[in-house]
Amino acid sequence: MRRIRFAKGHGTGNDFVIVADRHNTMPLSANDVRTLTDRHFGIGGDGVLRAVKAEHIPEWDGDPDLWFMDYRNADGSIAEMCGNGLRVFVRYLIENDWLNQPRIATRAGERAVQVTNDGTFTVDMGEVTLGGTVEVDLEGRNWSATVVDVGNPHAVVLLDEGTDLAGLPVQQQPRWQPSEAFPEGVNVEFVVPTGERSIALRVHERGSGETLSCGTGVVAAAAAFARASGGGSGSYAVTVPGGQLWVSLGDQRATLTGPAVLVATGETSLPD
Amino acid sequence: MRRIRFAKGHGTGNDFVIVADRHNTMPLSANDVRTLTDRHFGIGGDGVLRAVKAEHIPEWDGDPDLWFMDYRNADGSIAEMCGNGLRVFVRYLIENDWLNQPRIATRAGERAVQVTNDGTFTVDMGEVTLGGTVEVDLEGRNWSATVVDVGNPHAVVLLDEGTDLAGLPVQQQPRWQPSEAFPEGVNVEFVVPTGERSIALRVHERGSGETLSCGTGVVAAAAAFARASGGGSGSYAVTVPGGQLWVSLGDQRATLTGPAVLVATGETSLPD
Repeated sequence: MRRIRFAKGHGTGNDFVIVADRHNTMPLSANDVRTLTDRHFGIGGDGVLRAVKAEHIPEWDGDPDLWFMDYRNADGSIAEMCGNGLRVFVRYLIENDWLNQPRIATRAGERAVQVTNDGTFTVDMGEVTLGGTVEVDLEGRNWSATVVDVGNPHAVVLLDEGTDLAGLPVQQQPRWQPSEAFPEGVNVEFVVPTGERSIALRVHERGSGETLSCGTGVVAAAAAFARASGGGSGSYAVTVPGGQLWVSLGDQRATLTGPAVLVATGETSLPD
Repeated sequence: MRRIRFAKGHGTGNDFVIVADRHNTMPLSANDVRTLTDRHFGIGGDGVLRAVKAEHIPEWDGDPDLWFMDYRNADGSIAEMCGNGLRVFVRYLIENDWLNQPRIATRAGERAVQVTNDGTFTVDMGEVTLGGTVEVDLEGRNWSATVVDVGNPHAVVLLDEGTDLAGLPVQQQPRWQPSEAFPEGVNVEFVVPTGERSIALRVHERGSGETLSCGTGVVAAAAAFARASGGGSGSYAVTVPGGQLWVSLGDQRATLTGPAVLVATGETSLPD
């Protein structure tokens, strides 16, 4: 068995097991990741964040002095970026007094990060591209949805103000037409306006089902709402089941602001 | 915030946050328990095990030198006993070199425990009482079920050998007739024989839904199977989704044998 130190943290309920591996000497197999994220047999989390100095990542050709966020989904698969994970990652580096630059190396490139006075974290979410529409079906009810790309695909259903969001069966798998629009699946957001520049949403993530929060989904929802409402660029407040986030929409790019909490630190072991 | 040390462990996938409080100076509120067991905002677990020397438990009038297992369900409610939890509790005491007697004080009274050479743990499950039958309905299919009391109520459905257990929708809420048989709900086990003295089961726990393992359910299932098969007293192997357990049926009492694993140790904090 390999003994390792870990931390557990979350951003609006999207939770992660975090391990430090400065010199990239402890790559995690898919099985290691599943062991760590298993909620009954392991520590439990939606994913794993491994912190490695970028100079030790062979594929990285940017600033070698940055920290690289090796983000892995709970099933062990590799993912490019995770907005909630990035905030938790920054919080972890700060708590350890390791954050040396306001930028993080990710598989999606460099991402700027910023700690605000109220203890929230702002992270660069990259480019946001609004597309056309698809039809979304949830348990027999139909809506037109806006297609948004935030590095991954989203279909945003904008519901009327006052719609009972809690009553929607978002835990069920939504369907879409044309079905060939998303051959590898899509994340679907159900959005209710709560003010001129504020919305509430629930999200069904592909491969995960309903989740407490989804960073890219929050950005996609704010962008679709901004276009539909005519609100344009600027800041939007977004309430998710796991808490409160803010999206700032700029010229084709967005930032996401929200809390990041470290819950526990400890020691665990992985099979050899 | 109160900083506290914790361990996390499981018995066949039934998992617990464990805290030591030798002098009973840190009672946990229902809110504390919910904070610790929350799988996204906390550490996560099916329940909490607090270890207190029995001499510091005012309600305890037995041997003051025992360790008292303060078991709490994830929702903060108090429970009398938990067979999987008791094994994990014993493992925790042994790892800390605290186990001084082969007995544990629980709300259900003293329970004998035994560590076997192969690293499994045997715990006394108390009295088992076989009753009559009720009718169980699961998504439109009906079976007669044996009522068994193991301190808590169970309805055991004995299926034919070769039945596709994996195909049953055990995650759905079973119903029963007469409905007044269990005014506070019942745990329902679906059992398939896999040999003369071995069974496999899935369980729907009241208030929790389908779980990976249920100590009392395993005992109830073995007792119902033993009567139906004419196997009588002795040892039965029981496979649950979370692993392998063994039940020994004696004269109206039973013991449960199985693994207990400590996954992690660490530090967390609770709100003041």
